[in-house]
Amino acid sequence: MLDAAALDVLFREAHTANAFTTQPVTDADLHQVFDLLRMAPTSANSQPGRFVFVRSAAAKKRLEPALSAGNRAKTMAAPVTVIVAHDMRFHEFLPRVFPHDPGAVGWFEGEAKRASREITAFRNGTLQGAYFILAARAVGLDCGPMSGFDNGKVDAEFFPDGRWRSNFLVNLGHADPAGTMPRNPRLAFDDACRIL
Amino acid sequence: MLDAAALDVLFREAHTANAFTTQPVTDADLHQVFDLLRMAPTSANSQPGRFVFVRSAAAKKRLEPALSAGNRAKTMAAPVTVIVAHDMRFHEFLPRVFPHDPGAVGWFEGEAKRASREITAFRNGTLQGAYFILAARAVGLDCGPMSGFDNGKVDAEFFPDGRWRSNFLVNLGHADPAGTMPRNPRLAFDDACRIL
Repeated sequence: MLDAAALDVLFREAHTANAFTTQPVTDADLHQVFDLLRMAPTSANSQPGRFVFVRSAAAKKRLEPALSAGNRAKTMAAPVTVIVAHDMRFHEFLPRVFPHDPGAVGWFEGEAKRASREITAFRNGTLQGAYFILAARAVGLDCGPMSGFDNGKVDAEFFPDGRWRSNFLVNLGHADPAGTMPRNPRLAFDDACRIL
Repeated sequence: MLDAAALDVLFREAHTANAFTTQPVTDADLHQVFDLLRMAPTSANSQPGRFVFVRSAAAKKRLEPALSAGNRAKTMAAPVTVIVAHDMRFHEFLPRVFPHDPGAVGWFEGEAKRASREITAFRNGTLQGAYFILAARAVGLDCGPMSGFDNGKVDAEFFPDGRWRSNFLVNLGHADPAGTMPRNPRLAFDDACRIL
């Protein structure tokens, strides 16, 4: 069991960050987060999640037109904005990442398997997006995840070949507490859970 | 930053559990996991994730016909199997959980907002499923997540009114190391990431 301080960092005291200090997010930081998140489970070890780290001013400019008005200023100011995406042809890696079952690629290949492929990419890419958030917190970074943007515009600008598809965005850096809002109420166990 | 032992528990040394000891999973364990996972972020604090803890023999029997052959024996033997689900009418809670914007419920209400409602429920319910896995590990439990089952059969049996919808399953307990398989290869940073 993790100690109280670790549970606070991951869950209890962590907050969505809306403003960040000028401390940069380094390549080493990004590698460290990925090296953790990639160990967490996905269906058939499929690992469809993809992560585009938008850090340079030029890349931020490409992202700007896709942002909703309420998310624009804080996103342009964040040290990094992560496009959490998924690979619609993730199954091509299965011979390497699920080597004990050479038939696994067939579960997802071809037009007849499109629905299975799409839901697997979205579900497991999303799981990996959540792992990303908690891995970033675990190494001392703060996150501001967002769905408020135009996925079609991001896909057209960053993924014109259609292989990767955007899911959600995460602003990433070291939080400036001035941008942290009070926590909203959470549902109670009985609202969301049943024990049968 | 979390210490090395905590990173091992969450990511580096954790494995999918395929067999469990006889140590039970208590109501207190389930509340503890939920109290952590509910603090992690969802879009507009929507919290659509729902968790049905299938623990009694009678409830396990109801689940059995929906399981794929390869997952049946280990699931029937697990102390608890969690149905990770999402609430298709999650927006009805928004006046309580997103109180500063009384208009938020309108982002998701009515037939014209069905697509937005469905993708928000699925995306954020899945994020909360990932938070569940890491919160369970954080309190000393082990997880065996699975997509190999018939969602339609689970929904018909457990959610006949259609309000909640199944997403994936997680076997939960204390791992018997005899059921742990060697770790499969993970993708490299350059396979899955870009820095722009």
